[in-house]
Amino acid sequence: MKVFMKSLFALLLILNAAMAADPLPSWNDTAPKKNIIAFVDRVVKESSPDFVPVAERIATFDNDGTLWAEQPMYFQGLFAIDRVKVLAPQQPEWKTKEPFASILTGNYAAAFAGGERSIMELVMATHAGMSTEEFEQIVRDWVAAARHPKTERAYTEMVYKPMLELLGYLRASGFKTFIVSGGGVEFMRPWIEEVYGIPPEQVIGSSIKTKFDLTHGKPAIIRLPELNFIDDKAGKPLAINLHIGRRPIAAFGNSDGDLQMLQWATTGKGARLALIVHHTDGVREWAYDRNSLVGRLDKALDEAKARNWTIVDMKNDWKTIFPFERN
Amino acid sequence: MKVFMKSLFALLLILNAAMAADPLPSWNDTAPKKNIIAFVDRVVKESSPDFVPVAERIATFDNDGTLWAEQPMYFQGLFAIDRVKVLAPQQPEWKTKEPFASILTGNYAAAFAGGERSIMELVMATHAGMSTEEFEQIVRDWVAAARHPKTERAYTEMVYKPMLELLGYLRASGFKTFIVSGGGVEFMRPWIEEVYGIPPEQVIGSSIKTKFDLTHGKPAIIRLPELNFIDDKAGKPLAINLHIGRRPIAAFGNSDGDLQMLQWATTGKGARLALIVHHTDGVREWAYDRNSLVGRLDKALDEAKARNWTIVDMKNDWKTIFPFERN
Repeated sequence: MKVFMKSLFALLLILNAAMAADPLPSWNDTAPKKNIIAFVDRVVKESSPDFVPVAERIATFDNDGTLWAEQPMYFQGLFAIDRVKVLAPQQPEWKTKEPFASILTGNYAAAFAGGERSIMELVMATHAGMSTEEFEQIVRDWVAAARHPKTERAYTEMVYKPMLELLGYLRASGFKTFIVSGGGVEFMRPWIEEVYGIPPEQVIGSSIKTKFDLTHGKPAIIRLPELNFIDDKAGKPLAINLHIGRRPIAAFGNSDGDLQMLQWATTGKGARLALIVHHTDGVREWAYDRNSLVGRLDKALDEAKARNWTIVDMKNDWKTIFPFERN
Repeated sequence: MKVFMKSLFALLLILNAAMAADPLPSWNDTAPKKNIIAFVDRVVKESSPDFVPVAERIATFDNDGTLWAEQPMYFQGLFAIDRVKVLAPQQPEWKTKEPFASILTGNYAAAFAGGERSIMELVMATHAGMSTEEFEQIVRDWVAAARHPKTERAYTEMVYKPMLELLGYLRASGFKTFIVSGGGVEFMRPWIEEVYGIPPEQVIGSSIKTKFDLTHGKPAIIRLPELNFIDDKAGKPLAINLHIGRRPIAAFGNSDGDLQMLQWATTGKGARLALIVHHTDGVREWAYDRNSLVGRLDKALDEAKARNWTIVDMKNDWKTIFPFERN
């Protein structure tokens, strides 16, 4: 208990110090940074008419394209492709069966030509059929070894430094931060706490069904090749309602998949912050929006403009994008 | 921010004081109390070989029969019956349609004779067809007005004082406390934070499906008459895995519906606490176990004995049961 007390006191000192300095040093002093700080001031100052008690300071973050990169395709897709290659020797029939055959010859466009059905087959073949503990280890091993095709960095390095600062700033201001992502919840949890400081119980994502299994002597949870929930678009506010049970007062996304979450967060009472990360930097990152297959930002961009949501222009609003950049 | 700091410091002082006194004054000094304190000491002392970091101190609690009473039937069932009576004038066909007809004449045994199908019809007729905000208000109003048929107390007074102390003791020892109940998640959340000090995002329960609705100008989440998930028996470890993503190190239940949660919590590494509340006090509460329709405790009682789990004999181990008792 003493140690717990000591660490809490130490935390308070760190928080006090953090508050004094610029909480968002990787952000240029443009509108988004000003909007964020003005919003936080409004909800944390007890004298403010928009004061929000700590318990209700809920902030939800999309992951792909909002906290880490998502090009040339969602990183979980690259994980699935790598898994197909690892598993192929035990699955000789994949040589002539789509989408596996095209993946094994490196023709990813052909592999995904079958649309949602191909993606589901790929997901089930690579994400199901093992215990949750085994899957966690598979993800951990992949995250440790895999490198991004363009930057040759670990995927967990391809996170946005300004967003890491934002997560820390919100938490230092009494917010509870949640991930609400279309990515698989068990694909995210093994690395998210270390990278974003968000504990597993605050990670919401898509999921497949599972079963409780006692047949091997000790209990295990087995991952089944059947979809449970897709945490995207209208699924996001539903998942927020089911898992959190409170409406967020701040929500962060980058694509049309986040639109309903932003709508849900912004139509409650009092001060609200909705922020969209717009990928505008083709040199330091990628530039894409309305016509991109990955992270399409079209309707949500129109609504953001119409409703005066905060739009981050990555090229102009972020001093640094990735933590590994040299400034 | 200053106020936040001040309240944190105040919290620390309260915690320090709380630690000095008996943390479980409503418990007799019998084995269960000793087991609980010994377990907490093992996991919180940094010098202990079984020390557990704060982030991993997850404790899960069943609700019906573990934190509040469940006789003469689950309180949510009594809520549904009350709703049928309120809604009946708008549903004239219920006069001749089961299970509603029997409920309206007060013949609950006949109403439930149809088993699961009757229960589902009753749940869907009373829990679906409105927005989540409307349902929350319905539950709040019911909880404020309804009284238990035997004690004439509010249902939220019929909570177990020793368990409230246990929740507080665990939290003061760095545990995060979760509800994992077969009850409806949106039936529980409106009152659970005030009664147990557990925030909505730490309440896991059964659920019906919902849809995101924009047709009335502002976004709403509408409750649909379709089952989503039953958080009972093998569903409990699956829900824990999906929502928390960590295995609890302590789990608390009272019936066969909690068996798999206790199995899941106890088969991890290190110190584990599994506790079963055994309803043995027919005078102050109710006495029931193997043959009860509500809260049947049969297989889990055998396994608890075989595996040396902590069994609370309510009559002998609890000094006080309900907060309103005069000692």
